[in-house]
Amino acid sequence: MSDSLKEEIHRLGAQALAASRELAKLSTEDKNRILVAMADELVAREGPILEANAVDIAAAKENGLTPAMIDRLLLNPARLAGMAGGIRQVAELPDPVGQIIEEWERPNGLQIQQKRVPIGVIGIIYESRPNVTSDAAVLCFKTGNATLLRGGKEAIHSNLAIAAALQEGGARAGLPEHSIQLIPHTDRATVKIMAEMDQYLDLIIPRGGAGLIETVVSLARMPVIKHYDGICHTYVDKAADLDMATAIVLNAKTQKPGVCNALETLLVHRAVADTFLPKIAAALKEKGVEIRGDDATRAILGDDAAIAATEKDWTTEYLDLILSIKVVKDVDAAISHINHYGSHHSDCIVTANTNAAEAFLAEVDSAAVFRNSSTRFSDGEEFGFGAEIGISTDKLHARGPMALRELTSYKYLVRGEGQVR
Amino acid sequence: MSDSLKEEIHRLGAQALAASRELAKLSTEDKNRILVAMADELVAREGPILEANAVDIAAAKENGLTPAMIDRLLLNPARLAGMAGGIRQVAELPDPVGQIIEEWERPNGLQIQQKRVPIGVIGIIYESRPNVTSDAAVLCFKTGNATLLRGGKEAIHSNLAIAAALQEGGARAGLPEHSIQLIPHTDRATVKIMAEMDQYLDLIIPRGGAGLIETVVSLARMPVIKHYDGICHTYVDKAADLDMATAIVLNAKTQKPGVCNALETLLVHRAVADTFLPKIAAALKEKGVEIRGDDATRAILGDDAAIAATEKDWTTEYLDLILSIKVVKDVDAAISHINHYGSHHSDCIVTANTNAAEAFLAEVDSAAVFRNSSTRFSDGEEFGFGAEIGISTDKLHARGPMALRELTSYKYLVRGEGQVR
Repeated sequence: MSDSLKEEIHRLGAQALAASRELAKLSTEDKNRILVAMADELVAREGPILEANAVDIAAAKENGLTPAMIDRLLLNPARLAGMAGGIRQVAELPDPVGQIIEEWERPNGLQIQQKRVPIGVIGIIYESRPNVTSDAAVLCFKTGNATLLRGGKEAIHSNLAIAAALQEGGARAGLPEHSIQLIPHTDRATVKIMAEMDQYLDLIIPRGGAGLIETVVSLARMPVIKHYDGICHTYVDKAADLDMATAIVLNAKTQKPGVCNALETLLVHRAVADTFLPKIAAALKEKGVEIRGDDATRAILGDDAAIAATEKDWTTEYLDLILSIKVVKDVDAAISHINHYGSHHSDCIVTANTNAAEAFLAEVDSAAVFRNSSTRFSDGEEFGFGAEIGISTDKLHARGPMALRELTSYKYLVRGEGQVR
Repeated sequence: MSDSLKEEIHRLGAQALAASRELAKLSTEDKNRILVAMADELVAREGPILEANAVDIAAAKENGLTPAMIDRLLLNPARLAGMAGGIRQVAELPDPVGQIIEEWERPNGLQIQQKRVPIGVIGIIYESRPNVTSDAAVLCFKTGNATLLRGGKEAIHSNLAIAAALQEGGARAGLPEHSIQLIPHTDRATVKIMAEMDQYLDLIIPRGGAGLIETVVSLARMPVIKHYDGICHTYVDKAADLDMATAIVLNAKTQKPGVCNALETLLVHRAVADTFLPKIAAALKEKGVEIRGDDATRAILGDDAAIAATEKDWTTEYLDLILSIKVVKDVDAAISHINHYGSHHSDCIVTANTNAAEAFLAEVDSAAVFRNSSTRFSDGEEFGFGAEIGISTDKLHARGPMALRELTSYKYLVRGEGQVR
């Protein structure tokens, strides 16, 4: 790794730290005014941003990226307007910073407050979607944090243009210098430099595939909040309303199969397997879903309707129109399967039996556990948080949909009148 | 690293994970009954525990450990009774697990609860004090977590005896098998194996010196909560009551100089330096405190009363009767010094001026910020938390005094009636 690259990124880190001290002083009104200015500037720079994007798109085509990958890179006036609209929405959200979480008085008269404050400097390492530049920077800014962004090489021109619009547009409304910085390099060495730079970065959030997250986890000296796979389950209990179960399974699997809260494995109580499996298989077939079943499932559906699931299927996030199905003997077996094979993301029980439901909700060790509703609701907006930076599969600091509050820390303020020990 | 050592520690990890599922099902009453049984067993095994400790003490003497180190290792009936008493106190504390942090209904009728749950499996890596075996395991257990403990080699016999008493005593009252496990090896390879074992450990807490923490931070794949140095400051403002300032500085420096919330650097506003410095220097001299001053301090006190501070003094945690002193031009200069040289632990302003105080409390980026009170109050018991596992210098998940609540995670429970997207 070249010394100059490290020096350059460390300089950006030091600048971000200095910016974070200024950001912590901004009022909610200041921040909201700056957010609106950022949104305005994104729209005002539509021409240059789309030109920069065209450079990325041309390179993507030349490099033979798939149509799906090119679509993820593509910006157009509607998508840019969507990004600007997203910023205006964030301006409307309540600001968690400054909130007094708790306050109390000690017997010796000390007054203690626990107050919500920004985290400081957040590193975001992401892959090809240029909208992450705006989405992530804006959520971090709303909560008073400086960001150091490192996007993928496919989107570098788009990312630079978007970051410049946010920083420069915001600056005219009072955004401190260096609050939002994009690293203008995309080689892998930059990830290592950032991950070791704990004198400047309080947190790194990797947004992307398992390979990127794994690299950051293995290198990082500072806290990392991970958004790993969602190997989500729905368990159809013997006491399930089977029409409801059909609607929930279909929705969770097919409404948007490429996302982390989509269903990947269906577990069915053996007492209802004979009735439910043919019913759900017909509905899934209509939606073009491939079924991979265990022996009991294939015995009921026939080998043509369900190919044989292997051990690997139970730990696979398909993100596609594929569903693995297993027959289980009871709710305890369902819970054991989920805790063993799942990714602790979002899992559901369909049942009219409250005892079974409450056992499932208590014992499934996942960020979000559902009764009689689709796992697709495991989402910051659906939870009412207004926006999310991702769905954390970690258990510390942030678990599940991670929104503005999870982008804050706290400090204790203690006021006395000369107390000593 | 031998394969068998890794296999052995992974087996302990898998056992801890299985135990954590059982621990999560215990009621508060179950846990409190188990805690009392643990305390009873520690006392009942006084003989064997003190015998095990005598083996460690003999080895320590043979290996030429200092009297202070030997004292940290030493157990006696009074210290063992203190450990048991500590466990009984933890049994009396409120249990945060199961608390509904928030609950709300969405417009589509979904009922969402955010519920406090155990973290899972916590690794504790610590050095020579055998009481950590009990203190850490018991706090983790009260919050429904399994522990995998790895203590220092100096205390291995004591630690094994204490851990066995807790696990076996607790088991008779219903403690799940493998809830509290001590690794019976102390070579450095064990630290690396634990730090990479993120399939079993949700969190590692290193308790010890900077070298141990640094090793864990650089190797760990899972979250680490660090309890780094406390380079604590007191700033005496121009509007300070100088008698109050004297009492606070003396207390923070001398009441217990070897702890992380003790004062290390005194900052004095130049407008009161001529009056305050001779007054505090006389009081400090009486307590045997060595002063290391900047030029302005030495000009006032004389070169005999204060040796010259070097740049390194501003970043040194003395943990001893030594105090560095600097004259600053105003509260902003004090804040800048603290944010630049401090360790973001605990810092205090002494002033009658509320504007200066509030600027200091808002802008000093530390876990605990004090007005007109000793930094020695930065402590879980002094904050009213009943017990603490340490004082976190991290900003994520836990900051400052880390007590039972910070040993928990949360999950979302979502209850519906067939809702889909």
